[in-house]
Amino acid sequence: MRIERAVTYDVRFPTSLSGAGSDAMNPDPDYSAAYVVLETDDPGGLAGHGLTFTIGRGTEVCVAAIEALVPHVVGAPVDELLADLGGLWKRLVTDSQLRWLGPEKGVIHLATAAIVNAVWDLYAKRERKPLWKLLSDLPPERLVDCVDFRYIKDALTREEALALLRRSAATKAEREQRLLAEGFPAYTTSAGWIGYPEATLPALAREAVDAGFSHLKLKVGGDPEADLRRARLVRGAIGPGIRLSLDANQVWNVGDAVAAIERLAEVDPYWIEEPTSPDDIVGHKHIKDAVAPIKVATGEHVQNRVVFKQLLQLGAIDICQLDCCRLGGVNEVIAVVLLAAKFGVPVCPHAGGVGLCEYAQHISMFDYVSVSGTMDDRVCEFVDHLHEHFVDPVRVVGGRYAAPAAPGYSIEIRPETLSEFAFPDGPGWWTQEEVPA
Amino acid sequence: MRIERAVTYDVRFPTSLSGAGSDAMNPDPDYSAAYVVLETDDPGGLAGHGLTFTIGRGTEVCVAAIEALVPHVVGAPVDELLADLGGLWKRLVTDSQLRWLGPEKGVIHLATAAIVNAVWDLYAKRERKPLWKLLSDLPPERLVDCVDFRYIKDALTREEALALLRRSAATKAEREQRLLAEGFPAYTTSAGWIGYPEATLPALAREAVDAGFSHLKLKVGGDPEADLRRARLVRGAIGPGIRLSLDANQVWNVGDAVAAIERLAEVDPYWIEEPTSPDDIVGHKHIKDAVAPIKVATGEHVQNRVVFKQLLQLGAIDICQLDCCRLGGVNEVIAVVLLAAKFGVPVCPHAGGVGLCEYAQHISMFDYVSVSGTMDDRVCEFVDHLHEHFVDPVRVVGGRYAAPAAPGYSIEIRPETLSEFAFPDGPGWWTQEEVPA
Repeated sequence: MRIERAVTYDVRFPTSLSGAGSDAMNPDPDYSAAYVVLETDDPGGLAGHGLTFTIGRGTEVCVAAIEALVPHVVGAPVDELLADLGGLWKRLVTDSQLRWLGPEKGVIHLATAAIVNAVWDLYAKRERKPLWKLLSDLPPERLVDCVDFRYIKDALTREEALALLRRSAATKAEREQRLLAEGFPAYTTSAGWIGYPEATLPALAREAVDAGFSHLKLKVGGDPEADLRRARLVRGAIGPGIRLSLDANQVWNVGDAVAAIERLAEVDPYWIEEPTSPDDIVGHKHIKDAVAPIKVATGEHVQNRVVFKQLLQLGAIDICQLDCCRLGGVNEVIAVVLLAAKFGVPVCPHAGGVGLCEYAQHISMFDYVSVSGTMDDRVCEFVDHLHEHFVDPVRVVGGRYAAPAAPGYSIEIRPETLSEFAFPDGPGWWTQEEVPA
Repeated sequence: MRIERAVTYDVRFPTSLSGAGSDAMNPDPDYSAAYVVLETDDPGGLAGHGLTFTIGRGTEVCVAAIEALVPHVVGAPVDELLADLGGLWKRLVTDSQLRWLGPEKGVIHLATAAIVNAVWDLYAKRERKPLWKLLSDLPPERLVDCVDFRYIKDALTREEALALLRRSAATKAEREQRLLAEGFPAYTTSAGWIGYPEATLPALAREAVDAGFSHLKLKVGGDPEADLRRARLVRGAIGPGIRLSLDANQVWNVGDAVAAIERLAEVDPYWIEEPTSPDDIVGHKHIKDAVAPIKVATGEHVQNRVVFKQLLQLGAIDICQLDCCRLGGVNEVIAVVLLAAKFGVPVCPHAGGVGLCEYAQHISMFDYVSVSGTMDDRVCEFVDHLHEHFVDPVRVVGGRYAAPAAPGYSIEIRPETLSEFAFPDGPGWWTQEEVPA
């Protein structure tokens, strides 16, 4: 069986029309996907699906980058490809000319994620397992072979990674049972977008609590008075027993962040997310030291294992919010999950957008079963949006993700969606009155 | 006068056929440019030219990113655009949807550089000055208005930047005279590519010294024995009085870097360049502390002012090798030049490739005249390659860059080159026997 061709799609949803997904940095996202299907010559139609999440304009740039990278997989025998996923990763991230465009960051890395995740989707489908189960069943050596240890050996060696995985191996079965029975804890961002009017926040927050969520997130980083008003409204609506996190989406300088968080401390925030530039490791350390015991979280814009390594080495974050696309795909996600475990920092993946919840649930479940071994202080983000476009959408019940049962990485988009929201020519776009420029 | 249209080009040179430009990380670069011309309705044909440097495959991805960004300049009145270059920068780097693809890194930032540099080229041509002179003549307030202080205020405030510029203002005229009389010191990388056979190195190195260079650079990071042999050959050929720097192009882990540099210490290296990942600020600090007094240099892959800020805050580098494309263009280059001056770290810009020497000379000259005020320990990289394709190529005589006199940023490519090396259809490609895949 071979990868016969890679078919790419530019799929966009006109979400900016509703204010959903809005925050202080991203006022008008049109949730989008640069999507790729790796088709094989399997008579049963086996294919790998992958996407990288974007927020509108520029999705075509990611599609162009996917096209530039697919020669590394098209034509490859599937058995050989899946037998050496570490090798696949290295071919993609060290392509002798494309590497210049990163390295391992930005558009070329987002595109890498679409391909790498599609290969893992194909792998999981071939094994007839959901990705979390495939990862949890892989022997430690096989998992560690997928990790690129270049540039992180000073923080985590291959031997240390193996020891972490072996430590939890004996008790995996019982955690898997618990996961299947109880699901994995989620928190919700759906109630707190910055574009939502203040008057709607208390009811939305109560609805979330009534639905079973014990952890909510509110967007801040706008006008300081409005931030405080909105945070008080939400805290007032949910009471003291529910965790409330705040998300500033990178709008503050280091000094401003500390002052802003101190002003918001009265609402008892659990974590403050993206208080400043995702590139500012030293700045995060300064903020964390200043605002403790409020926790500092970041990761959705952290580009690779090298930056996470330093955030962990310096003790600059309390919560690791890795992103399944930003990091270039499953291999690097495994690396960061292992790094976080080494440093004892909980992984609470970034999700939302389109497809990120479908991806992230698998990573949290793998982390629970095979790496950290605990659900304590671990939550996977949930936003109730656009799931209807997936063949195997997430199921969140009582504030918890149910473990996916279908084979794959849950990222396959329904064919009718690929047509309807094809950009710019799909009817999902030309029937909108306000088509963005 | 308005920007009427932006015309993009994918220009590539088949340099991988000769081994020139080869190093331990980049064995086969085809030096390339994603190039943009901002055409105006000026009857005299005034236009701004800009490029971002790439090394082959993926140039089309950068061109796509330029196309995604040009709506921010096309249609703009030139006077308004040039009156608020800080505003232009912010529109480009905070585009509410494209920002997701970086932010301020990778492909979207490389593309930003092509546009920003084209606008500065247009500005300098309209003022009938070479860029270094335009920058040197701008009042401090005007220069500082171009800088984005978001995320760097904890290291450099607007007031501190103004003070730095005012400090050197009174003596600018005499430095300008000296620059025009003597030029600016260069160092050469032309003699030391890793793809060049050992036997050729001594003669190439001697030729460079005979041509007036007092500082050479050799690529290392290959087989450790070969590295040492090559370094000994070059040091033997040039004698002890000439500075010899080494460049590992990111191939080492942190621990390996320290060991490798210690092995090479016998050839008395001036600096070791890119010893590890450009993202590893903490790692650079560790290496610098371990290998002193050998200096640590990096920058050609450092993505923005936020990362340079931390390299400087932690004292992780001795030499700042900013890149005129990687950083997104002149505005961010000014920011980094000011940051480096604040921390007393010499700026020795990365150059080579295609067009980078043409760009970088202007930055070194501006830094000398208006910011650092000294040529001590400052050198601008020089590689004698592809200059014939420029309308106003660099002139390096006796190991020094002569100050450009023609208006603009020296980056305008000759029209016949744009045709001949258009990729993939130009005759510069189809007449090659070995056209890369």
